[in-house]
Amino acid sequence: MNIDDLTAFAKEKGFFWPGAEIYGGLAGTYDYGHLGTLLKRRFEQCWLSYFVERHNDYYLIEGSNILPEKPLIASGHAARFNDILVGCSKCHTYFRADVMLADMNIKVSEGANPSEIDSAVKSNNVKCPKCQGALLQSKSFNMMVDVHLGPEKNEKGYLRPETAQTPYLNFFREFNILRKSLPFGLAVIGRAYRNEISPRQGLYRMRELTQAELQIFFDPDAFKPDFGSVKDTEFNVVPFKTKKQVKITAANLVKEYEVPEFYAYHMAIIFLFYKNAIGIPDEKFRFLEKGGDEKAFYNRLHMDLEADVESWGGFKEIGGLHYRGDYDLTCHSKGANKDLSVKINGKKVMPNVLELSFGVDRNIWAMIDILYKDDKIRQVLGIKPWLSPLSAAVLPLQKDDTISAKAEEVRSELSKRFKVFFDEAGSIGRRYARQDELGTPFCITIDFDTVNSESKDFGTVTVRERDSKSQERIAISDLSLFLAEKTSYKV
Amino acid sequence: MNIDDLTAFAKEKGFFWPGAEIYGGLAGTYDYGHLGTLLKRRFEQCWLSYFVERHNDYYLIEGSNILPEKPLIASGHAARFNDILVGCSKCHTYFRADVMLADMNIKVSEGANPSEIDSAVKSNNVKCPKCQGALLQSKSFNMMVDVHLGPEKNEKGYLRPETAQTPYLNFFREFNILRKSLPFGLAVIGRAYRNEISPRQGLYRMRELTQAELQIFFDPDAFKPDFGSVKDTEFNVVPFKTKKQVKITAANLVKEYEVPEFYAYHMAIIFLFYKNAIGIPDEKFRFLEKGGDEKAFYNRLHMDLEADVESWGGFKEIGGLHYRGDYDLTCHSKGANKDLSVKINGKKVMPNVLELSFGVDRNIWAMIDILYKDDKIRQVLGIKPWLSPLSAAVLPLQKDDTISAKAEEVRSELSKRFKVFFDEAGSIGRRYARQDELGTPFCITIDFDTVNSESKDFGTVTVRERDSKSQERIAISDLSLFLAEKTSYKV
Repeated sequence: MNIDDLTAFAKEKGFFWPGAEIYGGLAGTYDYGHLGTLLKRRFEQCWLSYFVERHNDYYLIEGSNILPEKPLIASGHAARFNDILVGCSKCHTYFRADVMLADMNIKVSEGANPSEIDSAVKSNNVKCPKCQGALLQSKSFNMMVDVHLGPEKNEKGYLRPETAQTPYLNFFREFNILRKSLPFGLAVIGRAYRNEISPRQGLYRMRELTQAELQIFFDPDAFKPDFGSVKDTEFNVVPFKTKKQVKITAANLVKEYEVPEFYAYHMAIIFLFYKNAIGIPDEKFRFLEKGGDEKAFYNRLHMDLEADVESWGGFKEIGGLHYRGDYDLTCHSKGANKDLSVKINGKKVMPNVLELSFGVDRNIWAMIDILYKDDKIRQVLGIKPWLSPLSAAVLPLQKDDTISAKAEEVRSELSKRFKVFFDEAGSIGRRYARQDELGTPFCITIDFDTVNSESKDFGTVTVRERDSKSQERIAISDLSLFLAEKTSYKV
Repeated sequence: MNIDDLTAFAKEKGFFWPGAEIYGGLAGTYDYGHLGTLLKRRFEQCWLSYFVERHNDYYLIEGSNILPEKPLIASGHAARFNDILVGCSKCHTYFRADVMLADMNIKVSEGANPSEIDSAVKSNNVKCPKCQGALLQSKSFNMMVDVHLGPEKNEKGYLRPETAQTPYLNFFREFNILRKSLPFGLAVIGRAYRNEISPRQGLYRMRELTQAELQIFFDPDAFKPDFGSVKDTEFNVVPFKTKKQVKITAANLVKEYEVPEFYAYHMAIIFLFYKNAIGIPDEKFRFLEKGGDEKAFYNRLHMDLEADVESWGGFKEIGGLHYRGDYDLTCHSKGANKDLSVKINGKKVMPNVLELSFGVDRNIWAMIDILYKDDKIRQVLGIKPWLSPLSAAVLPLQKDDTISAKAEEVRSELSKRFKVFFDEAGSIGRRYARQDELGTPFCITIDFDTVNSESKDFGTVTVRERDSKSQERIAISDLSLFLAEKTSYKV
């Protein structure tokens, strides 16, 4: 699918569409319909189970989206969370310089400053992509969305540009309440905001987005996750040194590329998350190492998580794994004038941070792009059963009062535990096809045998599996257990 | 508890505290610690199960918090979502006029305009509550938080002042995708924003709050919920006519106060939600009818849901039940220049809206206030087991390697399904007391009998119930089923 296809699919089927759509939409914002909301919440829950809930020392918290100015000055966002803009002198359109130049296949480094941009514009004789007008001098532009509170609107704040700040700001209190030991993890699933100048590519570049982020606070002398359990796990990486994709084991990454074990361990479990929990094929996922000017200056090691998304034109960032050192707690110790270091067995430690960051909306888009299959005969959204918005559809095979009543009974019973759709409109083939497109893993048909006490199939239904199209008779009394088994993810 | 007690309790135990606390806090914002996050999420899930998920035609959706200006002009918020402010000429503090006057026991109607406020100030000779300075003329102040997007920050938008706008803006598309029949419900659990001038009283008056709201779209000629099932349900109401609290059945409300059956039905199920799902005693909950100038002009019938909260000084609003007529869809039909009416059996209907609105943060605060009991001997947060942040605590009774190992095994097994806390520090009495204060419904102790193969209690643990303090021996293999049974809410 290309961008327009996927956008149309998401809109028609009820996954997502532009915010305030009936007013023409607000660029960079999206609303999720019911099916999209279910899919998004299931992704979030799966992420939470996998990365947070199976650890005794990792905790989910929730925090205010509005932050005062001070912490964002301390964190460097007020000064450095900038994009470089280029405006057109004729049509007055503004462009993000890096995006505009990349679209023209002109390479500049990710950290390029305005004068570097200006010389790239000059040396390549770049004109306005919209009207061919002359471009103005580029300028630095802070991407945070500012808000102004109070009766005179002079209390300046920002909508948080990343959820990560919430754990940093709450680390000290939570550490003392909950655990008093390291490693210690704080996770947030919530909104972040960026005044994107060129919001586009569906859920790729948004002004309001959902992040699922885990911040692991640790003592760099004593962070020993169970590396042995994943050392032979093999996945694709593009190291900064070579810029060439290699398939490599976690153990060899440590040996050949000087990646610390704790970091390679988390690469492996992230890879396994995409492989097993989300169902992304191995070759569609990779790590892209950022180095030099490309990475945030505070990151000691920075890899993008990338998925190969056709509608985005290839590998694109859907998350990140960032070893941020002690940058964040050091900044806030200074900014808040409060020592955020902790005592571990009498030793003073300023915790280091490993950040596992996931763009939820981008992941939703990537999942649909990669897992939707159209072989001209069937259109199937092949997502994992525990991520499907609907766990099953109940379909009475014929129009008949006894069948309808039984079908309604089955639906009503299953609805207590599962999201179940009821559909009696159209041929059974058409109804199967509708569910295939929504990713519903099981279709349950009720027929004359179900309600005929003389049939050997009395009290049973046909369960059709989405991918194989295989059908089996299952007793109505076993349905709930069957669905529970098939639609729950076991880490 | 008073406000300071509850605030200190919430902070110490890990429920919530001011946003950006290490920077001195941002007034009107709160962060939830892990325990508070669990409590909040359980409240939200319980609300969702009760009001939304048991209906086949009610759906959860999710939407952008940033809205463009147009829909909020159409909805009337840009012109009318105002508070009246009074400033002090001496100390330059601003006050919300209604709150300031109410604190002085001076009555003005909720819809009072600036000149009515000014005459109340004059006739009562009101001075600045802070410095006794002379007060300035009052002025109307829009409470929405505005944001400015785009490279020149000239794309004006607002943070949504209520989640309700998300369903109104998405009604038409979702109706056509999902159901094409009425009644049809769209629910949102999410943030809303208000530039409150006097944020205070803990989670009562916040600038960033979480709402759980259900908008039921219906044909006023054909909205017939099962009134018979609740007609004898009796609850407290303060009708606008008499302003005296009465205990009355749903049936008598319809008969004596001309409340429509569909409205009285929803009052009854809301009352039953608080009674059975949340555990608020009957006498601590009531409906307060707003009429005349007090109610929003578009509401045909407006009742506040009120809880009797000691720390707020008595009955206070924690939600609302609003019959909004066809105001919302009519506004947006005009504003978006798109007919949002629907065809039901060939009849054109502009759906009416019944709004069930709950302030999640206020509900959390009210629950803690009402259900925390301190009889000087025990301090117990007596919340329902399905709302408790932790489902159980696992406590090894003695310091012993075999006991510790078994306790760790029990914790690890239960953690797969439940939130379980492990505590081996301090006397068993102190550990029970800690869990009582957090509301943990069950404490599981592992002792020598548990691990002694010659004891008749081998393989069993002691389970202590929080409220009764009663203890029983339960086989380890039965624990999971026991907890599942006790900690799940059945609607």
